[in-house]
Amino acid sequence: MGHNSFGSAFTVTTFGESHGEGLGVIIDGLESGFRLDLDSIQAEMKRRRPGANPLGTERNEQDELVILSGMYEGLTTGTPLAMVLYNTNQKSYDYSNLKDLFRPGHADWTFFKKFGVRDIRGGGRSSGRETSARVASGAVAKQILARQGIAIFAGTVQVGPIIATKRNWDEADNALTCPDREASHAMAALIEKVRSEKDSIGGIIECRITGLKAGLGEPVFGKLQALLSHAVMSIGAIKGIQFGDGFACATMRGSAFNDQRTSEGFLSNHSGGILGGISSGQEIILQAAVRPTASIGQSQKTVDKENTTTDLVIEGRHDPCICPRAVVVVEAMVAITLLDLWYTAFGRQR
Amino acid sequence: MGHNSFGSAFTVTTFGESHGEGLGVIIDGLESGFRLDLDSIQAEMKRRRPGANPLGTERNEQDELVILSGMYEGLTTGTPLAMVLYNTNQKSYDYSNLKDLFRPGHADWTFFKKFGVRDIRGGGRSSGRETSARVASGAVAKQILARQGIAIFAGTVQVGPIIATKRNWDEADNALTCPDREASHAMAALIEKVRSEKDSIGGIIECRITGLKAGLGEPVFGKLQALLSHAVMSIGAIKGIQFGDGFACATMRGSAFNDQRTSEGFLSNHSGGILGGISSGQEIILQAAVRPTASIGQSQKTVDKENTTTDLVIEGRHDPCICPRAVVVVEAMVAITLLDLWYTAFGRQR
Amino acid sequence: MGHNSFGSAFTVTTFGESHGEGLGVIIDGLESGFRLDLDSIQAEMKRRRPGANPLGTERNEQDELVILSGMYEGLTTGTPLAMVLYNTNQKSYDYSNLKDLFRPGHADWTFFKKFGVRDIRGGGRSSGRETSARVASGAVAKQILARQGIAIFAGTVQVGPIIATKRNWDEADNALTCPDREASHAMAALIEKVRSEKDSIGGIIECRITGLKAGLGEPVFGKLQALLSHAVMSIGAIKGIQFGDGFACATMRGSAFNDQRTSEGFLSNHSGGILGGISSGQEIILQAAVRPTASIGQSQKTVDKENTTTDLVIEGRHDPCICPRAVVVVEAMVAITLLDLWYTAFGRQR
Amino acid sequence: MGHNSFGSAFTVTTFGESHGEGLGVIIDGLESGFRLDLDSIQAEMKRRRPGANPLGTERNEQDELVILSGMYEGLTTGTPLAMVLYNTNQKSYDYSNLKDLFRPGHADWTFFKKFGVRDIRGGGRSSGRETSARVASGAVAKQILARQGIAIFAGTVQVGPIIATKRNWDEADNALTCPDREASHAMAALIEKVRSEKDSIGGIIECRITGLKAGLGEPVFGKLQALLSHAVMSIGAIKGIQFGDGFACATMRGSAFNDQRTSEGFLSNHSGGILGGISSGQEIILQAAVRPTASIGQSQKTVDKENTTTDLVIEGRHDPCICPRAVVVVEAMVAITLLDLWYTAFGRQR
Repeated sequence: MGHNSFGSAFTVTTFGESHGEGLGVIIDGLESGFRLDLDSIQAEMKRRRPGANPLGTERNEQDELVILSGMYEGLTTGTPLAMVLYNTNQKSYDYSNLKDLFRPGHADWTFFKKFGVRDIRGGGRSSGRETSARVASGAVAKQILARQGIAIFAGTVQVGPIIATKRNWDEADNALTCPDREASHAMAALIEKVRSEKDSIGGIIECRITGLKAGLGEPVFGKLQALLSHAVMSIGAIKGIQFGDGFACATMRGSAFNDQRTSEGFLSNHSGGILGGISSGQEIILQAAVRPTASIGQSQKTVDKENTTTDLVIEGRHDPCICPRAVVVVEAMVAITLLDLWYTAFGRQR
Repeated sequence: MGHNSFGSAFTVTTFGESHGEGLGVIIDGLESGFRLDLDSIQAEMKRRRPGANPLGTERNEQDELVILSGMYEGLTTGTPLAMVLYNTNQKSYDYSNLKDLFRPGHADWTFFKKFGVRDIRGGGRSSGRETSARVASGAVAKQILARQGIAIFAGTVQVGPIIATKRNWDEADNALTCPDREASHAMAALIEKVRSEKDSIGGIIECRITGLKAGLGEPVFGKLQALLSHAVMSIGAIKGIQFGDGFACATMRGSAFNDQRTSEGFLSNHSGGILGGISSGQEIILQAAVRPTASIGQSQKTVDKENTTTDLVIEGRHDPCICPRAVVVVEAMVAITLLDLWYTAFGRQR
Repeated sequence: MGHNSFGSAFTVTTFGESHGEGLGVIIDGLESGFRLDLDSIQAEMKRRRPGANPLGTERNEQDELVILSGMYEGLTTGTPLAMVLYNTNQKSYDYSNLKDLFRPGHADWTFFKKFGVRDIRGGGRSSGRETSARVASGAVAKQILARQGIAIFAGTVQVGPIIATKRNWDEADNALTCPDREASHAMAALIEKVRSEKDSIGGIIECRITGLKAGLGEPVFGKLQALLSHAVMSIGAIKGIQFGDGFACATMRGSAFNDQRTSEGFLSNHSGGILGGISSGQEIILQAAVRPTASIGQSQKTVDKENTTTDLVIEGRHDPCICPRAVVVVEAMVAITLLDLWYTAFGRQR
Repeated sequence: MGHNSFGSAFTVTTFGESHGEGLGVIIDGLESGFRLDLDSIQAEMKRRRPGANPLGTERNEQDELVILSGMYEGLTTGTPLAMVLYNTNQKSYDYSNLKDLFRPGHADWTFFKKFGVRDIRGGGRSSGRETSARVASGAVAKQILARQGIAIFAGTVQVGPIIATKRNWDEADNALTCPDREASHAMAALIEKVRSEKDSIGGIIECRITGLKAGLGEPVFGKLQALLSHAVMSIGAIKGIQFGDGFACATMRGSAFNDQRTSEGFLSNHSGGILGGISSGQEIILQAAVRPTASIGQSQKTVDKENTTTDLVIEGRHDPCICPRAVVVVEAMVAITLLDLWYTAFGRQR
């Protein structure tokens, strides 16, 4: 298919453009009789919503979810859960000056090459707004996983050169969901500085899974790290992913990297909670590299459809750093992947 | 399914354990009438074969491929291509002392937790030998991609602290396929030193795709980097993957990261040849972090099935570094992914 | 997945209940740049719509399709096409007396057993209204197939004991799309008689595909007749399907059944246009058995949730025969199947 | 994919041609720790084997199954189960005179049109021998379903005009597995007569599923009858399928067809054990129409590659009726379908 679906047992199919009638998601494979907490889904949506984060864009979008099917009297029915976000206050004219230009760092050029047609309004299907459908689906998955005692939480652990040195998740009640309060202040200051310079900055998001028992993941192409990588790397701004010690393993010896074990349990977690593609029962730890926002206010070189070089200045209010609002998107993709594997292994019908 | 298949249009299904009767692969979706070069497939197999690389294990395994179906008079028939490697000289007794122990860094523990049953001989399905089926499939995919002018080549660019600073692929005719001859000498020396210390060492493999036109990859869950990440991260030893500048983007500004464009073409390639999940027509560049080999000759702590702590020394000859023999496995997974996307987009029937 | 999707290259995912907010379909895998004729889609919808057929229910439902995504300036964009039908005048109170009863011949009993929860309003997901999403998708598929010269048309060829003896499709401009005008009059009279008796009647729908070249269909599990059977047998009221001579072949000799061939072409078409699972270039002919409508106005025995036997009389206006409105549903499922196979074989990107 | 796989949770991938090196099947998704009865699998193979049935071909083929992977010490390991049949005594020269001719009723013509290449030896991938891989897989599925109390059995209920009027399965110990001893004698006599006339004859196979609880099957595209139809219609010789009263429903009234229910249970089973696509807990009953064997010894018209009309007489010993040996193939496809749905609903991991 056109790869707008993810998962085979818990299947998420998203649709919609940022400036069309709306966008949404169909979840197929959901169990019946589960009481969905809609407020909790809406709260997750707010974590991603433009305008709700002080470090993000000042653009204000409504992310009010409408449920078209799949629930009856508060319970899931086992039939497809359809959730839609209508586009009520998207302003297409913002984009009219971009009609014939390909914005650097954006999908404009490759979409045009692939499809021939291009919905220039707000990035169309490549807009960050597409991720709202993922957040809604992830919020559903999280609730079901929570019943199994599985928790998923992510945070910003690096912005530019500023690195969080603590993992105190109680301190993560800041706009970056950074588990190091001091670092979060410095990160916030840097982001505001970058914003004032009409520029953007990259970072790193870390995600952890706790409460997952040993045994999830399949040994060959369905390794847990492979499926999670597929999931997380399908988020537009992510340029890399690593598990446990990740790229640092390149300089390590086997005698240091191997997680030895005694009758008390594992002595370390360099592997990030996965052995042979299967969860080991330890905490799962992954990190994702977040590129700096492509839309910046500085003048850049680009071409138009006639391939004439031109200077482009992108107007509008954009996120100076993608991390703050992307944290919940990473969590969502991780949750969707886990529930898909869970249903595959253990079924969804009683 | 149990995730022993990869791809939906060009579908590779692998089977077999390292010490059973044999292992192999069924390729479904191959076009008909293609003249397969079997010598070229066998040459690719040799690149991975234990015993064929001076920096690898001294264990000598035969990787002679038998074709059971799908060809007639030298041409593919469009029906499943079945290729089998029979296990002729695997010695199971090597593993008898591991029968009740879980080797650190291996899949032993998680397999036992997941399946309850465990084929302890040589790692069973989690053995590196499983990748031979991938190499065979990748060799097929490469030949078909070559007809479109697409080339895929990988090499070792880091071992421990030693980093290749050149990308001169003419120099890559060394045991590490390293595109920097001086670095390759230092890497080889380090690997031999590590071997003498009964230890192992990690590294980084880089893979490049040239000749791929703009337009391959799907905008949402089928982003080119997402599918390639799934593919490459499904190789056992890989702990991370990055595209273009990868994790370095965390410290970069948008004004530096964006690949601007003039009528002459792109001015840089920080994104690694992919924009919005779709190939841009530039060279595609990815890097994979390779963990140090899990099997080492030093004493390590582990437990047995009764959870009693014990000291384990793994006998036998193992690769001190996985990079040399994994290079061709990375290429294979990349090739399989690309051909799958190609057939999906352009079909396989004339 | 929960099997609310059909097809792998042209993928149709439907959602929604008859009395929820609405129902619809996401089409993934559609090519870009195709100018969709929306009026033609709406015209197909009308062929199925309750209230539009004199031989059908007098219930009047609006089937106005809203397109949420996937089109821009009249052209498909290659991204998911989302089409929704909002439920504007469904009256749930019609069903209040059925709340705790399982209607004979309906999915009520098995839904309750499977899901535990049951949306009793109008049959929920098992309502015939679900097929409207199929008709919309089929209308899209038909337009693309027509570009290849492929036409799909179905008609009623039997109602009760009345059998159409002609295949004059010019005469099929009647409420049954029956290609035999005289037979259509008798069928219509029988249907009205059955309606007056508060009963229902079965029939047979025949579907033909013309203009399909030889070569579509896959030899083993993807035989053209197998995929078409999956598609057509997934329509609620269909109890059987046959191709060419179908069940009549049980009494035939090979010497009579085999379609011999001379340089002029095939001498007969007993096989219905498919050999070895692959289209032969002849007309494809299939027939589907349509059960009598389950909802009838006569008193029937059933049980409630406490398993107490009770007499049930179903009020409301129902179709006395399903054939007239199901003809377009059969066509739709056939069209979806063919386009999926076409895209798989020949791709969808230029 | 090329549709050589069936099922998504219990996935069967078959490969091989009748006269290549061998053919076989990879089963992915099998649970671990299940003690497979290999003798029972071999016994199922014998039911299909040429030479083992007095009413079948006199050609004698060995169907000795070799297991390449997926078992260890008698138990399934949860990894792919690979089973191969090597082609040891296929004689290719039998087919040399068919090299440039397209046999009537066979896949020769359409294979050539589709693939351009054609393995003319014994029908290649379209040979009936391909079904041996299905029988092996079905035998595995049956054993696992038996643990749930589910039994699947099929028999011949019609050959030419001779119809079994009883369903006494204790009498089915005849070469046709016909549940009516008297009818079976008449059928056998007719088949021998047809054989002596160098002709062939069609028939009907009935299959029943007992012990299946209510709740299996999915409401929309995954209706139980739809998936079973896909499965059974993918067997080469089948031209039609029907459930319960099947095509007879065309002449029935709803008041007669509906299966009413009292506190004692259902009062009838016209629907064949499925309501709304979901098993009702009643016995499931389906029938498949079997075409007369395509290979007959009489002279037939056909063309060669240059489209010159020619007379063809097919030499060799062929089945005069496909029913006797196809009974077990129908059972196998039904078993594979059910286990796939079972694993999807209830999982395969403990």
